[in-house]
Amino acid sequence: MSWCVTASMCISRYLTGFLYFTSINFVLTFVAAILCVCFAPTAAGPGIPEIKAYLNGVDTPNMYGATTLIVKIIGSIGAVSAGLDLGKEGPLVHIGSCIASLLGQGGPDNYRIKWRWLRYFNNDRDRRDLITCGASSGVCAAFRAPVGGVLFALEEVATWWRSALLWRTFFSTAVVVVVLRAFIEICHSGKCGLFGEGGLIMFDVSNVTVSYHVMDVVLVVVIGIIGGVLGSLYNHLLHKILRLYNLINQKGRLHKLLLSLAVALFTSMCQYGLPFLVKCTPCDASLPGSVCPTNGRSGNFKQFNCPPGSYNDLATLLLTTNDDAVRNIFSTNTPQEYQPMSLLIFFVLYCILGLITFGIAVPSGLFLPIILMGSGYGRLLGIYIGPHTNIDQGLFAVLGAASLMAGSMRMTVSLCVIFLELTNNLLLLPITMIVLLIAKTVGDSFNPSIYEIILHLKGLPFMDANPEPWMRNLTVGELVDVKPSVVTLQGVEKVAKIVDVLKNTTHNGFPVMDDGVVPPVVGQANGATELHGLILRAHLIQALKKKWFFKERRKTENSEVIERFTWVELAEREGSIEGVIVTSEEMEMFVDLHPLTNTTPFTVLESMSVAKAMILFRQVGLRHLLVVPKYQASGVSPVIGILTRQDLLAHNILTVFPHLAKSKGREKRN
Amino acid sequence: MSWCVTASMCISRYLTGFLYFTSINFVLTFVAAILCVCFAPTAAGPGIPEIKAYLNGVDTPNMYGATTLIVKIIGSIGAVSAGLDLGKEGPLVHIGSCIASLLGQGGPDNYRIKWRWLRYFNNDRDRRDLITCGASSGVCAAFRAPVGGVLFALEEVATWWRSALLWRTFFSTAVVVVVLRAFIEICHSGKCGLFGEGGLIMFDVSNVTVSYHVMDVVLVVVIGIIGGVLGSLYNHLLHKILRLYNLINQKGRLHKLLLSLAVALFTSMCQYGLPFLVKCTPCDASLPGSVCPTNGRSGNFKQFNCPPGSYNDLATLLLTTNDDAVRNIFSTNTPQEYQPMSLLIFFVLYCILGLITFGIAVPSGLFLPIILMGSGYGRLLGIYIGPHTNIDQGLFAVLGAASLMAGSMRMTVSLCVIFLELTNNLLLLPITMIVLLIAKTVGDSFNPSIYEIILHLKGLPFMDANPEPWMRNLTVGELVDVKPSVVTLQGVEKVAKIVDVLKNTTHNGFPVMDDGVVPPVVGQANGATELHGLILRAHLIQALKKKWFFKERRKTENSEVIERFTWVELAEREGSIEGVIVTSEEMEMFVDLHPLTNTTPFTVLESMSVAKAMILFRQVGLRHLLVVPKYQASGVSPVIGILTRQDLLAHNILTVFPHLAKSKGREKRN
Repeated sequence: MSWCVTASMCISRYLTGFLYFTSINFVLTFVAAILCVCFAPTAAGPGIPEIKAYLNGVDTPNMYGATTLIVKIIGSIGAVSAGLDLGKEGPLVHIGSCIASLLGQGGPDNYRIKWRWLRYFNNDRDRRDLITCGASSGVCAAFRAPVGGVLFALEEVATWWRSALLWRTFFSTAVVVVVLRAFIEICHSGKCGLFGEGGLIMFDVSNVTVSYHVMDVVLVVVIGIIGGVLGSLYNHLLHKILRLYNLINQKGRLHKLLLSLAVALFTSMCQYGLPFLVKCTPCDASLPGSVCPTNGRSGNFKQFNCPPGSYNDLATLLLTTNDDAVRNIFSTNTPQEYQPMSLLIFFVLYCILGLITFGIAVPSGLFLPIILMGSGYGRLLGIYIGPHTNIDQGLFAVLGAASLMAGSMRMTVSLCVIFLELTNNLLLLPITMIVLLIAKTVGDSFNPSIYEIILHLKGLPFMDANPEPWMRNLTVGELVDVKPSVVTLQGVEKVAKIVDVLKNTTHNGFPVMDDGVVPPVVGQANGATELHGLILRAHLIQALKKKWFFKERRKTENSEVIERFTWVELAEREGSIEGVIVTSEEMEMFVDLHPLTNTTPFTVLESMSVAKAMILFRQVGLRHLLVVPKYQASGVSPVIGILTRQDLLAHNILTVFPHLAKSKGREKRN
Repeated sequence: MSWCVTASMCISRYLTGFLYFTSINFVLTFVAAILCVCFAPTAAGPGIPEIKAYLNGVDTPNMYGATTLIVKIIGSIGAVSAGLDLGKEGPLVHIGSCIASLLGQGGPDNYRIKWRWLRYFNNDRDRRDLITCGASSGVCAAFRAPVGGVLFALEEVATWWRSALLWRTFFSTAVVVVVLRAFIEICHSGKCGLFGEGGLIMFDVSNVTVSYHVMDVVLVVVIGIIGGVLGSLYNHLLHKILRLYNLINQKGRLHKLLLSLAVALFTSMCQYGLPFLVKCTPCDASLPGSVCPTNGRSGNFKQFNCPPGSYNDLATLLLTTNDDAVRNIFSTNTPQEYQPMSLLIFFVLYCILGLITFGIAVPSGLFLPIILMGSGYGRLLGIYIGPHTNIDQGLFAVLGAASLMAGSMRMTVSLCVIFLELTNNLLLLPITMIVLLIAKTVGDSFNPSIYEIILHLKGLPFMDANPEPWMRNLTVGELVDVKPSVVTLQGVEKVAKIVDVLKNTTHNGFPVMDDGVVPPVVGQANGATELHGLILRAHLIQALKKKWFFKERRKTENSEVIERFTWVELAEREGSIEGVIVTSEEMEMFVDLHPLTNTTPFTVLESMSVAKAMILFRQVGLRHLLVVPKYQASGVSPVIGILTRQDLLAHNILTVFPHLAKSKGREKRN
């Protein structure tokens, strides 16, 4: 766009540009939103909280299907290219997990390949491992940060961690980065558009020699504190806005769609309109003409509405891709490039956009909006403090971004490595570490991390790593006392009883007991009760579906079972009792539950504290925990209760034992 | 040393040099070895395996004392400056852990500060956390690699890992790196000798632009495979030599000392003598005279015995500190610097030294010897393959070092980050990742990692993360059946019984049971047996020492206990029954064990598989696991056995159930 001659010509040209810009963004957002609203509501948002919950043991339905995957890919492309204030990192993490899940189960639900070796992945642990690898590959692809990806999966996403998983995720990201490197090489000629810009290092700031003194550390501490405060403030406000959005979204699909489109319109208008408010800056005379102003390619110094030989600094930040905006604001050795006014407008605008964009019905990531906000205030700070220090303004922007990330997301090691891999400046490491730790500490004193807030908003029963202190004063015996009494089954049970139990309870596991057995050691104690194990609802349904009934009460051979039930069927977790038809004749028959029972359930004594039971539950990754009596006598049931995830959640316990909440404050450490 | 005029003058000057060199090294080694042999044998070696075992739950006596700390510091300085082929990383990790442990317990054993807040650290978990932080700080200090330090602690050292521990170790390394940075700044004037050489990045190779093609990946795979094979070969040979050294060392202190001194002599002789074997290389004419040859300072191109204007390339590698040797061999853009012959001599020499030095009685680290060996073969490979690729020879050395490290130590992520932080070349990341993963995979197919081999040699009962497949076919009931029957105590027990049990068993925990209690629910079952909990040997001894006896069988109030036993006494784990004197009158009295009993022990049913019991044992970090019956009847004991770490070790189980070993190969996955 060259400089126009008359004012009216200018205005009409700007209007044409505005219409093009806004309408293209509108259409792109519309495509992204309509796909998410109509086909895969789970594809909206980042998906990271749901993945975190899945790895903790909470499944969200339709999260890893083929539809979700396709919608997420197209939707993310649409939303990002519409210039909305959102990133592609969250969606890429989700995409990675979807692909991993689909590969592991042999394809989408309806067209699943049932090869024999696939059964190795057909258990919860391997499925979790695959999804963890997928998530780390996603981060790696988003930031071209292989080690950062591994650490992100470790620090933020995973609940259980094994040494083997560490190098498996590492392997996944190694493959990603090699493939990425190959693509960048192929695209070296520049035929792939913006792909490969920045090579493997997206926002290189390694050309600045970092030199700082002890006094600069004080400054770094200040940035960290501001980042922590702003980060927790952001979390707080986003929480409010997401609750408001939830109310709007509940009104129906149309409301969801309109909300997304309104945000898109507002974004486009601000991005196009606000640059007119700032003054043009003349180009630095020392720069060659090809560098400033920039037209028709990405880079600093956008000309936009300015006369030749000058540039519009706000347009440089707004009228570009988000990646380029970060690159421009991180740019080093350009102390005069931005006016404080432009940076202030930029910061305020992205604060507003960051808050209103996240909750709309398109695939959206949190990383980039926070980096943009943080770099805005960082660089602004740099302009005012810059003269008193020799830290470059671009590095101020980097530190600001890091501090806001840590203040909002509360990660440390993974963010540190991601920033290292993004900026390729190892000398920055010590001050980045300080900024991250301070921002995290400050933020933690106000509210939980953004992902925990979202998890709570979505109502996912996430199980925290550490039990609350008051949990030590409650025994599991007291906890099962207030629950309805446990439903147990006999080793060889009547069909009628099983159907009854399945229809009238929602439990997923039932203890199996045998009465009147003779224990091998103590001969005289005839009529002992034996706890045989735990049977899953899914397996009871399988037994009913297969009509695996006997006329008489009898035990079966193992071989009979292997004939009837394949590994695919036993790994199946879906299916409901409604779909099973049992005749009244069959109701009087028997099922031998012994072969289908898990004979090695984890148990705790009734005198065990809830805190320790919770540690066991989470560390070993359980779904059911049997409570056994501490008394040994005939007439006592060998199982007095069964605990599930819901029973051990702090929130649920407090609704039953409200007095414990009061003692919460008093004794933090016993 | 300038070029001498006549041959005899030369020889006498060389001899003088040799005598100085050897005798100084001899004295330094002598100091290091005599300290280790006489005052703190635990200070010898790296200390990392013992720390790893400690964090797994196996304590080595005298590992974290003040004496060990001082000996380790002085000894490590002596051994490293004696030019021995060993590093300072292992010792620094141990030093960090010692400092952490001493700070946590309030000082050395005899002069311990007993402030009230120190009791917060007086539990196993916090002590473990502190030692983990110390270990990561050690790696950070050794390599100036803060993130690498955190990851090393995570991947190699720690057994249990919590999110809180992640940012605590990160905080420790952040402090280390800031302090280090401040020292480097202070030493900028060059008054601190070699300290601060290389700044925060020790072996900077960032000046090379890495460009590689798909074909180069094949090459990288080859380096990885060679590294894996050599690494496992090194592990194998080191195992043999350590066993031989164990035999020598058992003969007494003098043998230990002589062995160390012999190795020191041999090292000095080789380092001084071998450079005479190679030809002098003329300096590259394009280099300024101040760069080549180097005299009187560290750097490439040592002149040694060569005429002016030329240098001895083997002397460049041998007659310098180990750090400088690595820097010299990693040096980039110097393709003609080293002759293949010199590199071959260097590689073979360091293979021999690396094998014979590690086991001697001085503080020694494994990292640097392996880096030296690996970089030797890497650069050698580079000379021959170099013409067919555009990877720099210095990078070949880096990749060779990485591959041998991974081949021997089997770490991936932490090594990757350590190499990144050592060399500051982010573009090298993809190929480093491939090399590490391949070397680890190849190595794993031959033998376990070097640390596991040392752990096994030292006889430390380390508990692995994964149970063996055959453990699923054994129940804990079968396991306790072959053990001597469990020793139980009554809730209110006779002193004589306690003394008897403590004297005649070596158990550390005893189940406490109450007979004839009336369970609250089932009224009719009179005479039930209640499992009250588990009491520790240390607490029984405390009760005896305090003479907390009663004439009659009675229960006590909680307040009585709090008066008598302080937290310091209850946290105490030492003390033996031999030191306790009980009169025959007191023998007839009673002790109420209820208040001292842990009422919430972890339990498993007798039908539980050993594999799952082991997972519980390790995940929750137990010392004792009670086995309860699956039968409920009067006359059955509520505890049928107790399992400890020793019972669950694969090796110990196989000695009792040898037939399980045979089924080992047949079914890898059930």
